[in-house]
Amino acid sequence: MFLLEELADRLGLSFSGDPHRRLTSMASLASAGPMDLSYHHPTSQLDQLASTQAGAVIISPSNARVCPADQLLTEDPYLTFARASGLFAAKRALPAVVHSGAHVDPGAELLGQVSIGPGAVVEASAKLHPGVRIGGGAFVGRGSVVGAGSIVGPNAVIHHDVVIGERCVVHSQAVLGGEGFGFARSDAGWERIHHLGGVRLGDRVEIGSCTTVDRGTLDDTVIEDDVIIDNLVQIAHNCRIGRGSAIAACSGLAGSTVIGAHCTLAGGVGVVGHVEICDNVHVTGMTMVTRSIRQAGSYSSGTGMAATRDWKQSAARFRHLDSIARRLTAVEKRHKTQ
Amino acid sequence: MFLLEELADRLGLSFSGDPHRRLTSMASLASAGPMDLSYHHPTSQLDQLASTQAGAVIISPSNARVCPADQLLTEDPYLTFARASGLFAAKRALPAVVHSGAHVDPGAELLGQVSIGPGAVVEASAKLHPGVRIGGGAFVGRGSVVGAGSIVGPNAVIHHDVVIGERCVVHSQAVLGGEGFGFARSDAGWERIHHLGGVRLGDRVEIGSCTTVDRGTLDDTVIEDDVIIDNLVQIAHNCRIGRGSAIAACSGLAGSTVIGAHCTLAGGVGVVGHVEICDNVHVTGMTMVTRSIRQAGSYSSGTGMAATRDWKQSAARFRHLDSIARRLTAVEKRHKTQ
Amino acid sequence: MFLLEELADRLGLSFSGDPHRRLTSMASLASAGPMDLSYHHPTSQLDQLASTQAGAVIISPSNARVCPADQLLTEDPYLTFARASGLFAAKRALPAVVHSGAHVDPGAELLGQVSIGPGAVVEASAKLHPGVRIGGGAFVGRGSVVGAGSIVGPNAVIHHDVVIGERCVVHSQAVLGGEGFGFARSDAGWERIHHLGGVRLGDRVEIGSCTTVDRGTLDDTVIEDDVIIDNLVQIAHNCRIGRGSAIAACSGLAGSTVIGAHCTLAGGVGVVGHVEICDNVHVTGMTMVTRSIRQAGSYSSGTGMAATRDWKQSAARFRHLDSIARRLTAVEKRHKTQ
Repeated sequence: MFLLEELADRLGLSFSGDPHRRLTSMASLASAGPMDLSYHHPTSQLDQLASTQAGAVIISPSNARVCPADQLLTEDPYLTFARASGLFAAKRALPAVVHSGAHVDPGAELLGQVSIGPGAVVEASAKLHPGVRIGGGAFVGRGSVVGAGSIVGPNAVIHHDVVIGERCVVHSQAVLGGEGFGFARSDAGWERIHHLGGVRLGDRVEIGSCTTVDRGTLDDTVIEDDVIIDNLVQIAHNCRIGRGSAIAACSGLAGSTVIGAHCTLAGGVGVVGHVEICDNVHVTGMTMVTRSIRQAGSYSSGTGMAATRDWKQSAARFRHLDSIARRLTAVEKRHKTQ
Repeated sequence: MFLLEELADRLGLSFSGDPHRRLTSMASLASAGPMDLSYHHPTSQLDQLASTQAGAVIISPSNARVCPADQLLTEDPYLTFARASGLFAAKRALPAVVHSGAHVDPGAELLGQVSIGPGAVVEASAKLHPGVRIGGGAFVGRGSVVGAGSIVGPNAVIHHDVVIGERCVVHSQAVLGGEGFGFARSDAGWERIHHLGGVRLGDRVEIGSCTTVDRGTLDDTVIEDDVIIDNLVQIAHNCRIGRGSAIAACSGLAGSTVIGAHCTLAGGVGVVGHVEICDNVHVTGMTMVTRSIRQAGSYSSGTGMAATRDWKQSAARFRHLDSIARRLTAVEKRHKTQ
Repeated sequence: MFLLEELADRLGLSFSGDPHRRLTSMASLASAGPMDLSYHHPTSQLDQLASTQAGAVIISPSNARVCPADQLLTEDPYLTFARASGLFAAKRALPAVVHSGAHVDPGAELLGQVSIGPGAVVEASAKLHPGVRIGGGAFVGRGSVVGAGSIVGPNAVIHHDVVIGERCVVHSQAVLGGEGFGFARSDAGWERIHHLGGVRLGDRVEIGSCTTVDRGTLDDTVIEDDVIIDNLVQIAHNCRIGRGSAIAACSGLAGSTVIGAHCTLAGGVGVVGHVEICDNVHVTGMTMVTRSIRQAGSYSSGTGMAATRDWKQSAARFRHLDSIARRLTAVEKRHKTQ
């Protein structure tokens, strides 16, 4: 529970309304009640705002007069919402304890107060910095380092010799440091390359649920500060992802791909191996990146969606595009000679 | 083991053959032996049926005369097969016990007979209804509810405050209630939105292995009754999926997507955020849904498959499609003026 | 640590340089120091080779004179690198022990020396052959068999009645033997087919992290010897994948797909159900395979990547491809009649 004036103080904002209003949680404008804090996104319509039952609303001063509730005033309601959500979430956090059912090797280093859930495994010479939380059933391999304040979700797997920076979140079922998909061919079949490199995460990195980040062949796979990666994403061996980039769900990067800073890959994007994408590139959903991108901007592939019946006709014609183009050229030539 | 007459009775069907025939398991027509029950799909060819060694076959009366074995007679052999498979599977079920190696918080509520495997974690105030089975190594967070007869597979993760209806199946490595991929931008980088909503599953919902269903931002992510979701599917925060819909493997839904009732998404489909798909829509494999769909029917995107050499020519021409269309218009105009 | 002459002996190669040079690990040419073994890929440029600080380099005799370091000489440096990586990795392996925190059912059969990590579950009548390693938190269901020398990664799930050959690797969070996505429709909704078949892996098979291989409906899902599968891949019920084939990350195979021997599927490929792909087929990245392939060769679908602005024009025209083709034919006809 927070008082309105307490929230305003913690968030460094001014407010209007009852300073002692009690706010127990957050809810959307439509479903909020008098004990809830809500927020209004500046680009949203005003009707839900006008009729909200919320106790207080995070709002831009320009929309304040439409709002019937108490207000936390901010020029960036979405950012304030993010910070307020963190305050309410922190109230729900459990105390930091090493559960008696955790399997912590005597050779692991717990540096300060950490939390380790039941069934979690922390191997020898793993190093957990202060404030680290390891979820139930998670695995931290030998020699790996989890930086201060970082969170490893239930059943996530951090293999050996992985380095995680500060205030990172590795979500449930993610795998950091699995072996890359590298094999040599021999007469006997595939021979595995045993990947001797590691994985290195900067600070404030997020790795989504069921996302896999393979370890490098000899050098490390590197994810720089402030990179956010969604669920079910594949980051292959020896990739490097630049600071502040974001990768949405179901995307996949093949080996040794380099992505610059502040790039955004929408969902379902594929990137072939050994290419480089420069800073400030946006790739739209389900695009296949087949070559290096050396100029900032937005890139796409694929076709638009249509009713299947119509699409089938287009798809059938696609197979004859080369012939269509040649026939057109022939017609043009005949025109000229006429 | 079942006797033929016992199976007919349990399935409410008539049969022909030896009522005391002993059937110990099920097998396909080609591999079944005299102790096996098999089935013949009405649209399949009859040669395997004619030569089967099965002890008994689930079969439509119209094909009965071709079948050399004893018979369970039904107008819908595939549905009967589904129900029979359930009878045989139930025989294999283990007794319901809470394993001594499970980590069940004293504050968890076990309502009636439940089964909890070794290494599983059930946190305080989680509520397990009668007949629930929690697999080894699975995780059920505080405040979550698992409805009567529902199954959570080994190593699956149910985060806190997730509500699962009755007779649901959450398969191994699935994650329900992970935090959504929502961040605000600040000068310092991405600031996480702490997702305070939950996930709500209706009754008879299936969530596939390694499938992720993120919790809502403030309101819940909702999956209605009888929805079936395959493996490796991403359901983002605040999605709503209508009753009876089916989503095949490797598909992904971005945030706040609404899917109607009785829709089917084939494998590898992507849906952008904040769109609505009405009832009774089918989307073919690997389609990208880029806008709302307001009319029932089938939708597609992409191109047909071809030999790479031919495809490269079409793909190269695709980049010049606009120019091709303009040139064609110019030719047509010249024709008119000639 | 290895001496240079010892490595040459183990790998069956000749060498040049100091036989007693001590090599403690492997590193890339650019980052290697005097205690590191490195390798030079025959197709790579020579400048990094010329300036390397490595203690020794795996190299083809034809490039030997450019290399300032000691040398292991081989006609196939990449294959030798694979084998050398295995020697260094083996030095890091932990001793084989059954951890006191593992949950091994008294009815499980441990045949010889095996390693089982903390929190792992091995159910009754599961059979682990000599040299098997089960990672922490992994699950091996009743009746399943893990062949000699095979490795199951931390938190991987092997359901019941799955057979794994020798020297396989099942990576973290993979799921073998989950139920297939098969349902019959009834008036009440979807009715699950309870999958009574199993999963059968040959020898030297690799299954990537978060990859799912569903069990067969009645017969088994089969993956033959020497198949390698990357992360986040879906293999549906009753698929069969032929010897030596490779499937890259984020691909998905629908039910009853048959893939021949020595095929390669690049990343993000989708294959519809009930099709057959013959031996020696290559499918390029993000292709959708919509029909059987009966001739060896390379196959593709999709479009090339372009700047989004240009792509939008092409995509818009794609919807009118049929009309473009018809208009072109009309123009050609008028030409003929002129």
